[in-house]
Amino acid sequence: MTYLGLHGLQHRGQESAGIVTAHEGRLIAYRRLGLVGEIFTPDVLARLPGPSAIGHVRYSTAGKSSLSNAQPLTVHYGKGSLAVAHNGNLTNALKIRKDLEQHGAIFQSTSDTEVLIHLIARSGSNDVDAVCEALYRAHGSYSILFMFGDTVIAARDAFGIRPLCIGKLDDSWVVSSESAAFDLIGAEMVRDVEPGEMIVFDKSGGMRSLRPFPRNENRLCLFEYVYFSRPDSVIDGRSVYEARKKMGEILAQESPVEADLVIPVPDSGTAAALGYARHSGLPFELGLIRSHYVGRTFIEPQQAIRNFGVKLKLNPSRAVLDGKKVVVVDDSLVRGTTSGKIVENIRKAGAREVHFRVSSPPIRYSCKYGIDTPTEEELIANDMKLSKIAGHIGADSLAYLSLDGLKQAVGEGAGYCTACFDGDYPVPFEDEGLRLQLRFEGL
Amino acid sequence: MTYLGLHGLQHRGQESAGIVTAHEGRLIAYRRLGLVGEIFTPDVLARLPGPSAIGHVRYSTAGKSSLSNAQPLTVHYGKGSLAVAHNGNLTNALKIRKDLEQHGAIFQSTSDTEVLIHLIARSGSNDVDAVCEALYRAHGSYSILFMFGDTVIAARDAFGIRPLCIGKLDDSWVVSSESAAFDLIGAEMVRDVEPGEMIVFDKSGGMRSLRPFPRNENRLCLFEYVYFSRPDSVIDGRSVYEARKKMGEILAQESPVEADLVIPVPDSGTAAALGYARHSGLPFELGLIRSHYVGRTFIEPQQAIRNFGVKLKLNPSRAVLDGKKVVVVDDSLVRGTTSGKIVENIRKAGAREVHFRVSSPPIRYSCKYGIDTPTEEELIANDMKLSKIAGHIGADSLAYLSLDGLKQAVGEGAGYCTACFDGDYPVPFEDEGLRLQLRFEGL
Amino acid sequence: MTYLGLHGLQHRGQESAGIVTAHEGRLIAYRRLGLVGEIFTPDVLARLPGPSAIGHVRYSTAGKSSLSNAQPLTVHYGKGSLAVAHNGNLTNALKIRKDLEQHGAIFQSTSDTEVLIHLIARSGSNDVDAVCEALYRAHGSYSILFMFGDTVIAARDAFGIRPLCIGKLDDSWVVSSESAAFDLIGAEMVRDVEPGEMIVFDKSGGMRSLRPFPRNENRLCLFEYVYFSRPDSVIDGRSVYEARKKMGEILAQESPVEADLVIPVPDSGTAAALGYARHSGLPFELGLIRSHYVGRTFIEPQQAIRNFGVKLKLNPSRAVLDGKKVVVVDDSLVRGTTSGKIVENIRKAGAREVHFRVSSPPIRYSCKYGIDTPTEEELIANDMKLSKIAGHIGADSLAYLSLDGLKQAVGEGAGYCTACFDGDYPVPFEDEGLRLQLRFEGL
Amino acid sequence: MTYLGLHGLQHRGQESAGIVTAHEGRLIAYRRLGLVGEIFTPDVLARLPGPSAIGHVRYSTAGKSSLSNAQPLTVHYGKGSLAVAHNGNLTNALKIRKDLEQHGAIFQSTSDTEVLIHLIARSGSNDVDAVCEALYRAHGSYSILFMFGDTVIAARDAFGIRPLCIGKLDDSWVVSSESAAFDLIGAEMVRDVEPGEMIVFDKSGGMRSLRPFPRNENRLCLFEYVYFSRPDSVIDGRSVYEARKKMGEILAQESPVEADLVIPVPDSGTAAALGYARHSGLPFELGLIRSHYVGRTFIEPQQAIRNFGVKLKLNPSRAVLDGKKVVVVDDSLVRGTTSGKIVENIRKAGAREVHFRVSSPPIRYSCKYGIDTPTEEELIANDMKLSKIAGHIGADSLAYLSLDGLKQAVGEGAGYCTACFDGDYPVPFEDEGLRLQLRFEGL
Repeated sequence: MTYLGLHGLQHRGQESAGIVTAHEGRLIAYRRLGLVGEIFTPDVLARLPGPSAIGHVRYSTAGKSSLSNAQPLTVHYGKGSLAVAHNGNLTNALKIRKDLEQHGAIFQSTSDTEVLIHLIARSGSNDVDAVCEALYRAHGSYSILFMFGDTVIAARDAFGIRPLCIGKLDDSWVVSSESAAFDLIGAEMVRDVEPGEMIVFDKSGGMRSLRPFPRNENRLCLFEYVYFSRPDSVIDGRSVYEARKKMGEILAQESPVEADLVIPVPDSGTAAALGYARHSGLPFELGLIRSHYVGRTFIEPQQAIRNFGVKLKLNPSRAVLDGKKVVVVDDSLVRGTTSGKIVENIRKAGAREVHFRVSSPPIRYSCKYGIDTPTEEELIANDMKLSKIAGHIGADSLAYLSLDGLKQAVGEGAGYCTACFDGDYPVPFEDEGLRLQLRFEGL
Repeated sequence: MTYLGLHGLQHRGQESAGIVTAHEGRLIAYRRLGLVGEIFTPDVLARLPGPSAIGHVRYSTAGKSSLSNAQPLTVHYGKGSLAVAHNGNLTNALKIRKDLEQHGAIFQSTSDTEVLIHLIARSGSNDVDAVCEALYRAHGSYSILFMFGDTVIAARDAFGIRPLCIGKLDDSWVVSSESAAFDLIGAEMVRDVEPGEMIVFDKSGGMRSLRPFPRNENRLCLFEYVYFSRPDSVIDGRSVYEARKKMGEILAQESPVEADLVIPVPDSGTAAALGYARHSGLPFELGLIRSHYVGRTFIEPQQAIRNFGVKLKLNPSRAVLDGKKVVVVDDSLVRGTTSGKIVENIRKAGAREVHFRVSSPPIRYSCKYGIDTPTEEELIANDMKLSKIAGHIGADSLAYLSLDGLKQAVGEGAGYCTACFDGDYPVPFEDEGLRLQLRFEGL
Repeated sequence: MTYLGLHGLQHRGQESAGIVTAHEGRLIAYRRLGLVGEIFTPDVLARLPGPSAIGHVRYSTAGKSSLSNAQPLTVHYGKGSLAVAHNGNLTNALKIRKDLEQHGAIFQSTSDTEVLIHLIARSGSNDVDAVCEALYRAHGSYSILFMFGDTVIAARDAFGIRPLCIGKLDDSWVVSSESAAFDLIGAEMVRDVEPGEMIVFDKSGGMRSLRPFPRNENRLCLFEYVYFSRPDSVIDGRSVYEARKKMGEILAQESPVEADLVIPVPDSGTAAALGYARHSGLPFELGLIRSHYVGRTFIEPQQAIRNFGVKLKLNPSRAVLDGKKVVVVDDSLVRGTTSGKIVENIRKAGAREVHFRVSSPPIRYSCKYGIDTPTEEELIANDMKLSKIAGHIGADSLAYLSLDGLKQAVGEGAGYCTACFDGDYPVPFEDEGLRLQLRFEGL
Repeated sequence: MTYLGLHGLQHRGQESAGIVTAHEGRLIAYRRLGLVGEIFTPDVLARLPGPSAIGHVRYSTAGKSSLSNAQPLTVHYGKGSLAVAHNGNLTNALKIRKDLEQHGAIFQSTSDTEVLIHLIARSGSNDVDAVCEALYRAHGSYSILFMFGDTVIAARDAFGIRPLCIGKLDDSWVVSSESAAFDLIGAEMVRDVEPGEMIVFDKSGGMRSLRPFPRNENRLCLFEYVYFSRPDSVIDGRSVYEARKKMGEILAQESPVEADLVIPVPDSGTAAALGYARHSGLPFELGLIRSHYVGRTFIEPQQAIRNFGVKLKLNPSRAVLDGKKVVVVDDSLVRGTTSGKIVENIRKAGAREVHFRVSSPPIRYSCKYGIDTPTEEELIANDMKLSKIAGHIGADSLAYLSLDGLKQAVGEGAGYCTACFDGDYPVPFEDEGLRLQLRFEGL
């Protein structure tokens, strides 16, 4: 089941995947670089028995990209064994690490998550209390699972920055970052884990909710709705697909344009483009054909063939575009490189005008809580006046959804983390200035 | 360029790929099982120099699936070297083969295409005449390229069953099964090769059209429009994407249904679903979320999790479907297995009614000209009365596009091969009853 | 059994190996580049059923080093299937090939052996007669096996240049290049195949001897005794190990030297060094330690470490050599490169004098019958006056065994091929001047 | 240089190999399962720059066979980075580990060596003192290297159980388990590290000898001379090859036999067989032919072919053995399985009598200091009366070298560890009864 669920969360991390099972008092772990379907062969799964398991897919935001950082992290320590799977980013991990190292701790990885393991190993308390103490000392964003033999503990940080939800499949509990994984395995959604909540599943079969931390205001990451989560997930009560369509509708309202048709950048912009088309009354067409066979493994020709890589992935269809005024909708504009190529290709396929519409506000700040945004210098909206970006990507016009429009699309009820748009970071970054000076490197 | 173009034709064959270049009087060949992007690394391409090249992607319809059948086939024979790339299927290949073997010929592969090579090797004529003689003796469907050192010959069978078109990139000629490959490399479409036409490209730089065969009526494969070709290709003057939308429109006209929304089976049914939605006035929604990370490599759970594989690929979105009457549009219904699972999943996601609409007629006959249809027993429309299929796949209603509707959608001007729908085969299958009795097997 | 026997013949070819079995009227073939133990896994062997089989290990002397030249060659042709395993070299293969190609034959490999297959495929006669006709037309050296379904035919060329012997294991016949393979599988030696003899094994269980060719004088390759065969084989009645010891004894008699000890270049020179020590009365010592872990995969340091590769394989033992006058015995001196390094290393380990003794005559001519000697320019004894070679390799003295001494050591009874020593080639090389102009290259 | 030297020590461990270099204040590590020549490609070596390096080849005697136990172990800890390469076995590692784990230490491997790293990381002292403290607390056998950035520390346990020697190459120091590695890289032997000595090499270029531990009597492992070390090494002043010949001579004196010839089990018994032949006056012959192509990868036939594996490696030569009374000499007799097969094969090749002579005493006890002896139940000399072993292996007579004879052969001067022969263990095994209860398992 854990394996099947990881398939449904593959979009959240493609660098490595791992599963740890608890079997007859022991933990059994398998972690590799690669995709879930490549890593877990029938033979591997057969060697992962046991009634409970946790899994993880990782893409790297803290710590080097290497097998030693693949999760769930596992250790054998004085009181037994422990596995941890963490989505998010601790903001004082280096501070804690340096302190622990002064007291003789030896770290196995460069992952921020490993400090939690050392804090637990050094605690004199029982499992649940040791986890509380460790999470109390660590700051930042985390949707996290701990497995100690028969006991699994799930926790969501006090701002609820990353999503986490609870499901049920027959008599078993399931926990996942997104509800789409429940659909895949036939489990039913029970509820979201609340910000600052800690939940203990033990061999009694029950589920115990603890609230050891003072609760903060909610600050769920808005980018989960804009881009990161699957459209078939429901997060904190709101359908991602419906939210995206609504973003497109509000965008059409805020930034209309006279045109012949609306096309999405598939698949990321498809839901918003549908919303834009619906509100504007313009026909929705597939003007960019997405190839199903594009891996990362083609060779970019050195010259002559402009934009080959982008065309290979998204080829403009002359039959749709020739002679037309086209609205192109995408979910976000990060560096602007690909968007510029898309606009150029659409023009070459005969479009008379190209109007670019983005269903999120300009991204000006780096995420510190677990989304892999580029450095601020690489963010085009940070680097360039908005008025110049349209020219830079070669569009006849460019418009972004407003931050208010975005909040309205996802529902104004709860609070959100809007740091990447407006720099309002809910948790301070205490490791600023600290650097992990690794004096050895394993090849 | 050949490598880049093969990327654009990858959908036509995923079993093997190959390129042969002509360099300083020699042919250099590289063929492997796998996808274009996996096979052709920078290192491999660097070892394939030369001013002209032909390439091929294969999926197996005649001959075993093995490297020895990968194309372009290449041989060294008395007069030099020769490479052949063939799309289609010869219908008297075994008859010719048995005759040649009686005269001492030794075949290297089980491919039907190899008989052409032996006929050419045994001819006393020059290159162009030897190709004419060989094609005169072989029957069936072929869009085919021959390369002899500096000369490349392209030919399309007399019924024009498979597509073939000519493009130009600066001073060079390009030939491709589909025009989308021209877009990728920045070449311009010149025209389609005509049925029964043979075209000679030689080192003079010119292009010479020959018509050595009596011309038959046109019988282009309709399935190219329905499913096989890319939506961004234009075949014999007709946009595939526009044809598909039109199929959806006519389908809506022929088989309307009262419903809340129209969803495609993405991506194959998307264009037709747009057409259906437009004509019917129903909203077009994304009710099935296609995963970008599904390879062929997941493990189907042995029990309990119904339809996991299909959900992993196409997960229904409860937020869209719950409580709704849904029209689902797909391009074809072959075995009915997947469609049944999709209908079941949509229902489990809360749909009140599920109406299945297929934008092509029932497929009742196997293709003998190069499309890999299953045997006739496996074709659900051959095996079961139409009135029972809706029940079989669990839909509240089922309707197919009529054959007349399909012809109308692609344009009535030319003739088409409709054999898979109505059994009207333009070329008789002369190898019926013959079997290649291989008395050795290479592991 | 074939697999086990190939292990015992691995020294005769390390480039590729193959087995073909006859099973229920079909031949099943498996050939790969690599060593026997790497290629034939339990899984592969399980897919090679059948009551009879032939196998081959190849090192390349004619035709490129590639999988398509791996043997046994197999074909499907008009009358059925055929597999061939050939040790030796045909001297008119290119002449025959060019003639066959003029008549439309298409060759799959660059192997000389393939001409026999085409001759058989084009013959109107039955299996045995077709083999006779083909061998009659082909000249050169061959110990060869043909397998047609139930029938296996073994033949040795009319001069008996390469060895071939017959054994028996319970009720089954076994044929092998060397008798050591019989020891491994527990078979008993019956007799050598005679020069010019052809033997037919069919499903009757009997063995039929034919003599279709006029018999020539015997010309067994002397190099089989000197270097190529295993010391535990017996060829044409003579133990290879005993012959080598005798070479050492006669060498000691012909070229004595005052010294403290005799050391072999292990393992090739060990038997001759024992003979030398015994005749001379000098102590036999292990002065060069052969490493068991040397593959072909070490990296030669670019500078500074002289002769690292040779020392890694054969490290001189200072404790044995320091201050001593040393006789070093090796079986042959081909290019002189390694010998020079060995002499230098022995000197660096403290030897006072180094006397090099070679238990075969100077090699001055290339073998045209299946031993992979370098070109004549690379043969030091062809390129340099004998009197200068000692200086070239840095030895205090150098002596070769005389050709008469070598003949005496192996027994004067039969005739031998001495071409590599004296240029007396028993079969003329008819392909001189012909070249296989391959105008295509498969990567 | 480290890489080249590891080639020369490959016989000491074939499970894994590793190199760590110090480069600009950082350590860079590469460790893999496999052989030196397979692991270190030019590409890998290019990524290991730096003026100093340590390397290791491992075969497993403590800790599971897995990559995480491959050495040199490396860690990043509070004061920097550290790499350790250890030959030997700590006898109180588990005791120390359990104690450290009680104080929150988290271990990365199951290797005994890792406790040293934790002791050093928790010490408040400088590098050299921290190493002293750690070695003071750990007991057992060790020839060990520590690398901290620019400083390398070498140490040999107080009994000198495992060998360790110092060489010089131009201006650089070299340390190795065996002197043969110096020969390979052209370094000169300086001296052996003394038991209980600790040597510090730092960036000053000098070498500083410390004696922080009370010196015990010498107890060098006798098995290094009998079997483990290379014959071209010199250990504590004694040539291994000369020692082995001497063992054979004393064995001939202690246990003569009337026979026709002496043959070794090559290559392990060759030196002793030479000594035996020399003292007895019997001719030394090669009666068992060792194949150069035997990997671990052949498939043992399930039946019928007795002793195939042993024959494949060591085929008896009928020409040498037929009708003869044979003395077979091997260096040791551990389980007796292979010896029994060898005797049977020699008899089948025609030998009239087979007398087995072993150039070491009966092995009755397991090694606890780093040689991978089987459990005591598997040791034939422990399990069976000596008088029955000859019958068990099928020999006409069997004799071992006496322990006194062995000591005499290696020189009576120093003290030796004779534990495997007589159970006299110089260091008590404090971990007896402790077990590493691993409650997690990484696949």
